[in-house]
Amino acid sequence: MVQIAVARSGPRSQEKRAEILRRAADAFRRRGFHATGMRDIARSLGMTPGALYYYFRSKGDLLYFCQQHSLRRLLGEGRAILSRPGGEGEKLRTLIRAHVETLLDETGGSAAHLEVRALPSGRRPWILAQRDAYETTLRRLITRGVRSGAFRPVDPKLAALAILGAVNGIVLWWKPEGPRRPAEIAGAFAEVLVGGLER
Amino acid sequence: MVQIAVARSGPRSQEKRAEILRRAADAFRRRGFHATGMRDIARSLGMTPGALYYYFRSKGDLLYFCQQHSLRRLLGEGRAILSRPGGEGEKLRTLIRAHVETLLDETGGSAAHLEVRALPSGRRPWILAQRDAYETTLRRLITRGVRSGAFRPVDPKLAALAILGAVNGIVLWWKPEGPRRPAEIAGAFAEVLVGGLER
Repeated sequence: MVQIAVARSGPRSQEKRAEILRRAADAFRRRGFHATGMRDIARSLGMTPGALYYYFRSKGDLLYFCQQHSLRRLLGEGRAILSRPGGEGEKLRTLIRAHVETLLDETGGSAAHLEVRALPSGRRPWILAQRDAYETTLRRLITRGVRSGAFRPVDPKLAALAILGAVNGIVLWWKPEGPRRPAEIAGAFAEVLVGGLER
Repeated sequence: MVQIAVARSGPRSQEKRAEILRRAADAFRRRGFHATGMRDIARSLGMTPGALYYYFRSKGDLLYFCQQHSLRRLLGEGRAILSRPGGEGEKLRTLIRAHVETLLDETGGSAAHLEVRALPSGRRPWILAQRDAYETTLRRLITRGVRSGAFRPVDPKLAALAILGAVNGIVLWWKPEGPRRPAEIAGAFAEVLVGGLER
């Protein structure tokens, strides 16, 4: 048991876990979360299902680590952008671009990002709390922009939800082999969405 | 067999089917599509599962008719708005408001609207074709607005996808008992999303 614990947390094991997460996110994107089994993910990695279960207890557990990874990064970037000097319009553009690029580059544009209901019930509260914290960061930035006069007098809650819906929805149609690069999509979404708030 | 066919297509049967669809959409919204069984839907209607299967062959079949109902309406309204005289900004506002109100009033804000992968494979092509036709209508309206100078020179494809993501994403957070009425949400989304395109 001690050896297993060491193996699971060592640097090699961390790399292996990261590789499994990338491959799982890719499988979820291609086939959908519900249609993808642990067996499919193991096969795509050339592993036995038993070896995969050594790293992740269940498909729900794998989903949790996929979402944890992207949420940590989104929240870290969101808070850094908020505390930086500068105008709210430019900050919001930066935040939207960072969000789109995180979703498409880091997690392979996987729709697993939206599957909150499929999380193991014990894991759900942490994810929901992080999602709320991220939404709060975004709402705070919009509220400041409305107060400073950079943005029109919109309802910050609904404006934040419109932005989140648009950017998160990208994972429902995006394909890595499609004609538009992540940076291009990120830029276009930032322009359309921030343009709707600016005076 | 003839009697069954008659019963299924008579006006009473149509009413019953519409009632089942409303109740199913509501159950999908509250518990999620994947966690809701035919048994749960039957129970909420005071029917036996057998009676429910008389009207709909499977949960996937029920999902198909939910989506068919809202897509028919969305597409009908979208095409009517497109062919009307008037400016593109105002038309796009009307289309977004109609879309949000259809999702929230007609289908009870059910996330089942987004579950394309869970459709029976034989039913999927019709739904995908209708979704494409709706996206084309929206893209056409944006292209005209760019040409007329009403809108900034955006990529119509990406702008349409941003709008669709934002409005379809509402079903992921909306609750009928929440503080904001459908018309209020519809108006706020129309302003934020169209404002981003107008010069």
